[in-house]
Amino acid sequence: MAIKTPITIAYGDGIGPEIMTATLNILTAADAQIQPEIIEVGEKIYLQGFTSGISDDAWASLKRTKVLLKGPITTPQGGGYKSLNVTLRKTLGLFANVRPCVSYAPYVATKCPNIDLVIVRENEEDCYSGIEHRATDEVYQCLKLISRPGCEQIIQYAFEYARKFNRKKVTSFSKDNIMKMTDGLFHHVFNEIAADYPDIQHDHLIVDIGTALIATQPERFDVIVTLNLYGDIISDVAAQVAGSVGLAGSANIGYQMAMFEAIHGSAPDIAGKNIANPSGLLNAAIQMLIHINQPDVATTIENAWLTTLEDGIHTGDIYSATHSKQKVGTQGFADAVIERLGKTPSHFKPADYKPGAYAKIQCYGGRPRIVSKKELVGVDIFIDNPTDIPAETLASKLKALDTDMELIVITSRGLKIWPNSTIESPYLRHCCCRFQSSGDVKKLSAIKHEDIIHLLQQMNQLGLDVVKTENLYTYDGELGFTLAQGQ
Amino acid sequence: MAIKTPITIAYGDGIGPEIMTATLNILTAADAQIQPEIIEVGEKIYLQGFTSGISDDAWASLKRTKVLLKGPITTPQGGGYKSLNVTLRKTLGLFANVRPCVSYAPYVATKCPNIDLVIVRENEEDCYSGIEHRATDEVYQCLKLISRPGCEQIIQYAFEYARKFNRKKVTSFSKDNIMKMTDGLFHHVFNEIAADYPDIQHDHLIVDIGTALIATQPERFDVIVTLNLYGDIISDVAAQVAGSVGLAGSANIGYQMAMFEAIHGSAPDIAGKNIANPSGLLNAAIQMLIHINQPDVATTIENAWLTTLEDGIHTGDIYSATHSKQKVGTQGFADAVIERLGKTPSHFKPADYKPGAYAKIQCYGGRPRIVSKKELVGVDIFIDNPTDIPAETLASKLKALDTDMELIVITSRGLKIWPNSTIESPYLRHCCCRFQSSGDVKKLSAIKHEDIIHLLQQMNQLGLDVVKTENLYTYDGELGFTLAQGQ
Repeated sequence: MAIKTPITIAYGDGIGPEIMTATLNILTAADAQIQPEIIEVGEKIYLQGFTSGISDDAWASLKRTKVLLKGPITTPQGGGYKSLNVTLRKTLGLFANVRPCVSYAPYVATKCPNIDLVIVRENEEDCYSGIEHRATDEVYQCLKLISRPGCEQIIQYAFEYARKFNRKKVTSFSKDNIMKMTDGLFHHVFNEIAADYPDIQHDHLIVDIGTALIATQPERFDVIVTLNLYGDIISDVAAQVAGSVGLAGSANIGYQMAMFEAIHGSAPDIAGKNIANPSGLLNAAIQMLIHINQPDVATTIENAWLTTLEDGIHTGDIYSATHSKQKVGTQGFADAVIERLGKTPSHFKPADYKPGAYAKIQCYGGRPRIVSKKELVGVDIFIDNPTDIPAETLASKLKALDTDMELIVITSRGLKIWPNSTIESPYLRHCCCRFQSSGDVKKLSAIKHEDIIHLLQQMNQLGLDVVKTENLYTYDGELGFTLAQGQ
Repeated sequence: MAIKTPITIAYGDGIGPEIMTATLNILTAADAQIQPEIIEVGEKIYLQGFTSGISDDAWASLKRTKVLLKGPITTPQGGGYKSLNVTLRKTLGLFANVRPCVSYAPYVATKCPNIDLVIVRENEEDCYSGIEHRATDEVYQCLKLISRPGCEQIIQYAFEYARKFNRKKVTSFSKDNIMKMTDGLFHHVFNEIAADYPDIQHDHLIVDIGTALIATQPERFDVIVTLNLYGDIISDVAAQVAGSVGLAGSANIGYQMAMFEAIHGSAPDIAGKNIANPSGLLNAAIQMLIHINQPDVATTIENAWLTTLEDGIHTGDIYSATHSKQKVGTQGFADAVIERLGKTPSHFKPADYKPGAYAKIQCYGGRPRIVSKKELVGVDIFIDNPTDIPAETLASKLKALDTDMELIVITSRGLKIWPNSTIESPYLRHCCCRFQSSGDVKKLSAIKHEDIIHLLQQMNQLGLDVVKTENLYTYDGELGFTLAQGQ
């Protein structure tokens, strides 16, 4: 390996500089073939006026190397500063967040000594797109978006990961018993893609039960793939249960670019004291070495690190009277790892990343795209009804309008309030009026956008405050909307 | 207590009849002053053609008694059957799901022996309203709705509960660092209402960290109040960690009506075998007795039940060689509880519900309603862009339209793709075009609904497929929408 791989390094804030120094010392001692380009990101850059926490020069390096090893960042409060992680993730399309989660009992305290799982979390969609509106004085809404390509790439990534890292099973989590379309899509695509990987087992859990099982029986999981919000929650649960919040690294992976970091924060309270544990960043660096196809170096470092843990050489955060022999600082810990380069752990299972086998996992773009025939068949028109006009009165007004569409149902927060409502005391101030080309969803015919506009004009003349619309479509004849309760 | 309280009883499916019989036997032996009205719900009723799982007669009883003690129900698969729980919850406005979660170590296996918390979960809103649309061939969406009255009633309920049950602290969970408007509202209302309860401590956690702490340090929590989805997840985590899935009851509370049930299912595989543990339903019945103001009976039964656990009289589900003395069946367990009526536990803290103190918790309707001045200032128009028209081309078309509004930004899944996008390879097939009355959000002036309709007409003439709209409002001058990244 004569040619060194250029990588971009950001020391970060708080304990960032000291743990990065320790990590790079270990990489150098292990003869990692890397050529670091140092960039400055985070607090200093924020305070220079870059609200994204990163300067143009730093961007240039990133785009050149396509690999970033990053120390933790402090985002200043207020003042419109944006999380650098969010900026990097969104701008670079880092769609997969990959978090191995391992317990290191008995050297690190945990209630679950046999955890060895990986969470692959979708990183770009879900309720995290920041699309929020206040529709009425009292009702706020957030748009959860799930796309087929988004599901395909993250699920494909999870199965490719499982195959490359010799994992046996991929489990998906969703809440598709409630969110039948969005989470249903994720589950559906999961089954589709699982069929392409007959060598990997797969199953699916509802996220509430799944999360409870991570909390109590995490050893049953291997690779878990899930949506953004659920992934956020279960990543924290798994790390906490494993006791590895201070030791774990994570990767953010896109088609062009990858970023590696510890999962912990910048811990400004202990910065500069040479007591922070560099293990989280070191484990991120190990993931990076695999990514840039230096699995031999990754193996050597991971085994030295495991041996150091076994030998009881511990930083203060994991020091215990029973399992530790020597308390060391940040650099002392790095030195202990360096001393053990070439050694193999006896208690822990040794790492053995095969040369060539674990290089960058590619997801080969979209799957064959089959476009459905889309037909406009109706519209949901949401109104603000601050004076609590009863549903019956609303309905009689709407039924009198000049349109070929039929008023089918009026709902409030998903509950039918007209016709024949059984709701005792309905909430009336945020109503959805559903118009369809036919009352029978099996006999829907196409309407035109003009029909909807014509309806909106008339509702406006009635003085109704239309706050939002959602068109109703069919796709190859299948309904592109959920039926209201009782519809 | 001469007058008996009428309550509605549904035996339910699977193990329902036997655990209900056992529970009622205990209530009778403890001299609970109740007058049961038996209704039939569930499987039989579903198969008679009531897709909601409940007949009109049964409704009549419920509306008379306003209290339901319900055995577990089996919802038949397929055929359009609706979950009876969902029907009851929605129709009767049961806005609060209340789940006490207690560990009973060492008699019931748990990794966390000191759990004693209560989860108060919002039950009507969030992503659970079933409002889903497929906006384009590839993009599905779910609408998350959070209302101020919804937040107020559940949070007020949690604090009232804490006060009445002598709890010290209420913790709220949300993800308001990401969902600043919806979850932000919940957090904001929480702080508002907490101020009315200076005798109760309060704090707030981000849901990912909060859930991780429930999994590992549940003993730090007292009362937790949260939104529907988070509540669903953490209820399962807490019950699993406590080891109390088979023992816990829950309440669903509305202004007019309350329903009490075990948290476990109907377990058809062990139905009719007299081996099921009736404790979950019994604990639900204890909650019910408190609700109908018979705290003395509730106290007597809970203490007898705790004593039975301590005495090692266990059903098979919790039987262990170390902590059990006698394995009993469903009715045998009930008999053991009945024998111990009047006894007080020595290991567990005895129950002591004060007469009169814990009657039905009222939430006194809405808080004073202050209506903001609402002004329409723009619109988000979402389009399906199946041919990947570049954002720049779209923008130049839209900027040429005849309108007083200004095209401010085009986004895709919340990311800015015009102007000056930094996104490497944007997803173009689901775009949001934001028009505002001014480019400067501090200088927004009112527009009319006609202006939006006029814009829609022109976009339609351009052949653009508008799939949804979201109006942009200000409320007392405050923005009723989030700014796009980079806006």
